[in-house]
Amino acid sequence: MAPQNVGILAMEIYFPPTCIQQDILENFDGVSKGKYTIGLGQYCMAFCSEVEDVISMGLTAVTSLLEKYEIDPKQIGRMEVGSETVIDKSKSIKTFLMKIFEDCGNTDIEGVDSTNACYGGTAALFNCVNWVESSSWDGRYGLVVTTDSANLLRPGLCRGTSSTNRWSRGCCYAHGPDAPIAFESKFRASHMAHAYDFYKPDLASEYPVVDGKLSQTCYLMALDSCYKGYCQKYEKLQGNQFSMADADYFVFHSPYNKLVQKSFARLVFDDVARNASSVDESAKEKLGPFTSLNGDESYQSRDLEKASQQVAKPEYDKKVQPGTLIPKQLGNMYTASLYAAFASLIHNKSGSLDGKRVMMFSYGSGLTATMFSLRLTEGKAPFSLPNIAKILNIEHKLKTRTELEPGKFVDLMHVMEHRYGGKDYVTSKDTSHLASGTYYLTHVDSKFRRYYAKKVTESEVSNGH
Amino acid sequence: MAPQNVGILAMEIYFPPTCIQQDILENFDGVSKGKYTIGLGQYCMAFCSEVEDVISMGLTAVTSLLEKYEIDPKQIGRMEVGSETVIDKSKSIKTFLMKIFEDCGNTDIEGVDSTNACYGGTAALFNCVNWVESSSWDGRYGLVVTTDSANLLRPGLCRGTSSTNRWSRGCCYAHGPDAPIAFESKFRASHMAHAYDFYKPDLASEYPVVDGKLSQTCYLMALDSCYKGYCQKYEKLQGNQFSMADADYFVFHSPYNKLVQKSFARLVFDDVARNASSVDESAKEKLGPFTSLNGDESYQSRDLEKASQQVAKPEYDKKVQPGTLIPKQLGNMYTASLYAAFASLIHNKSGSLDGKRVMMFSYGSGLTATMFSLRLTEGKAPFSLPNIAKILNIEHKLKTRTELEPGKFVDLMHVMEHRYGGKDYVTSKDTSHLASGTYYLTHVDSKFRRYYAKKVTESEVSNGH
Repeated sequence: MAPQNVGILAMEIYFPPTCIQQDILENFDGVSKGKYTIGLGQYCMAFCSEVEDVISMGLTAVTSLLEKYEIDPKQIGRMEVGSETVIDKSKSIKTFLMKIFEDCGNTDIEGVDSTNACYGGTAALFNCVNWVESSSWDGRYGLVVTTDSANLLRPGLCRGTSSTNRWSRGCCYAHGPDAPIAFESKFRASHMAHAYDFYKPDLASEYPVVDGKLSQTCYLMALDSCYKGYCQKYEKLQGNQFSMADADYFVFHSPYNKLVQKSFARLVFDDVARNASSVDESAKEKLGPFTSLNGDESYQSRDLEKASQQVAKPEYDKKVQPGTLIPKQLGNMYTASLYAAFASLIHNKSGSLDGKRVMMFSYGSGLTATMFSLRLTEGKAPFSLPNIAKILNIEHKLKTRTELEPGKFVDLMHVMEHRYGGKDYVTSKDTSHLASGTYYLTHVDSKFRRYYAKKVTESEVSNGH
Repeated sequence: MAPQNVGILAMEIYFPPTCIQQDILENFDGVSKGKYTIGLGQYCMAFCSEVEDVISMGLTAVTSLLEKYEIDPKQIGRMEVGSETVIDKSKSIKTFLMKIFEDCGNTDIEGVDSTNACYGGTAALFNCVNWVESSSWDGRYGLVVTTDSANLLRPGLCRGTSSTNRWSRGCCYAHGPDAPIAFESKFRASHMAHAYDFYKPDLASEYPVVDGKLSQTCYLMALDSCYKGYCQKYEKLQGNQFSMADADYFVFHSPYNKLVQKSFARLVFDDVARNASSVDESAKEKLGPFTSLNGDESYQSRDLEKASQQVAKPEYDKKVQPGTLIPKQLGNMYTASLYAAFASLIHNKSGSLDGKRVMMFSYGSGLTATMFSLRLTEGKAPFSLPNIAKILNIEHKLKTRTELEPGKFVDLMHVMEHRYGGKDYVTSKDTSHLASGTYYLTHVDSKFRRYYAKKVTESEVSNGH
């Protein structure tokens, strides 16, 4: 029999323990008060120090997941990586992570890296789920790793810009049948097109070329298109209308929280525009006048943006807010963003998610986007929602972070900018901020080969761990 | 009911119409006579002129496939690209190809780029096949594009090196159920590990870091491991021994033909070492003495290499040779290499492949490798093997190429090296060598945005094409 309820069985998240408060950064950058905190809706930003990168974070997350859920590394049959951070133009990040499986001799692990901006993680996820449902599945678990440490723009380094910088982090999840987080694969809808909203054509540079205004329009346009497609597929298969009332939670790719607020409001407007039966009179009255705008006008209208966010507010607090914790506390996580947002929901609501439907919207510039939905059930330990929440341990991970002074942060960024794409250097090997079990970069040799070590505290060594 | 015999329904191959003979290049480079032709086993090398790149070749191949098999672009539900040529570190090649689907309004096409050296095409292929077998399949076709134009090393530009340069090309295929080229997905075996045999860590440079000797050992080691895994899976599921006698053809990833010869010989040796019942006495006698070598010794032994190639020769001519035409005539095609070799087999044997099993070995440095097998049936038009061979039209494509003088070739390489990763330039727009229907690069603007046009001959325009 074909495997049923294929989806996510286990999750782990790792993010660097170093961060900086956004209001302190506003002050330091000399921008107007509230620009980052209110304008972008962000509270704090995490970043890698010079001893961490996408590979070390991937090593840390995968090792931790296998240990905490007691999964035998031989039981992994596929591992996919989603990332937009290019450390090598040919060798995949996945091959670096194969180091983890060397000791047990498991080399029969399919999958490589999936790439398109922030969407790579979603592509990797779909590939993994499809594998479990395919005839090539051999009964073992699939593993998806999303890891990024891309840098947008650095105030102080890139003068004249107004964006904040964002360092990102690794997230991973194991896949198989009978999952507490199951995919409703029949309904998903994608929107893919050729666009130059955010891209990285300058190969020697760490920085992207960004058209911020275009990127936001592309995001909202793709959201509209995916939602329309999702509703059509649902209605064709289920025979009844789909509207936002049919979903309990909405999780979005979150470059910054303000865009998540706008996105949810946009969907509320979409339901008004398509005259969904669940829309109440008050919403119709407030947003109805805007339905005469053409597409482009509606993306540019500040009045519509304001009115729809106001109408959406109560539902936003209920259905979106629980999934915004980590993105607001860490910043843009690129491929990991959507899944860190989803982890926030599990963290906040793990006891009350049985039977709930979660809508997910993934976006990657260039552009690729998909809306899909998950159906949650309590599950059985170790693959149960409460246990996943316990292992994610998000509150503790957020609380034990170290806040850096802006000066120190900028110094660090300078070091890393200097080293970008470089070779022949030794890192500080300063692991004082890292928790035991964290991997870190020790050096890069004259042939660009990278070397990592794992921090192990003395007490663990003496305990035989 | 689940879709049966999922596999490749249609294939098209495009390669640049400009090439240079390897013996002329030997002379021009001042290397010993036979270095490229006998030492590497290569006859000719194709390369892109300055108006072609991985995107233009992808546009050409996909458009041609849709037209020639009369597939409605709306009937494509997934498109995956395998490539190791990085034109943008964030935006996928797949998004460029979405231009083809703009006119018909089909934006609901899943898939992004899969990346790990020459293996990306195989990963994309598996993803596409798994999708057709998964619950998320919506009945439409999947499309896989493998496209590369990577440059290894240029004699004359990189003095002191001995390798030839290799420019590569695009290949694409459509997927669905009831295919004449079906996957035997249960048997496939992979070998994935962390290695630094060939990689591209210098982001600003077009050139890889290569350890040629290590890369060959990694290739052969991965081949051994995959063959062992394949045999084990086959034997577990089928209950009887698998050996090379159970397969009709062998197709290999072909960086150069000599490695293909070595690889097939290695498998012959593997069958002797595992005492397969199909091995004849003469082979046992000649290769038996080498089975006492340990792994590393056996990879380095020139005597074993020679003896096994000698023993393998008659079977090589029968089972491998038919799949070597294009790789020998074009050079290393990276992600397209294995599939261009497979296309050669279809071209050479299309009338007699019904019921045959083809073993495929895919390798990407870094490293990732898989051995899998295909079961062929005649099929029904337009998705039949004879029709695929007709559309591939390989003989004509090879015959109508233009041979360039070495001096012109080197000049061209200089122009392209200079432009690597660059912006703000206009190409010559010289399409004199290109066939009608070929896409070409016209210019790259100051924001690195790339523009393409399609060559259409006047007679076609007046005919309304």
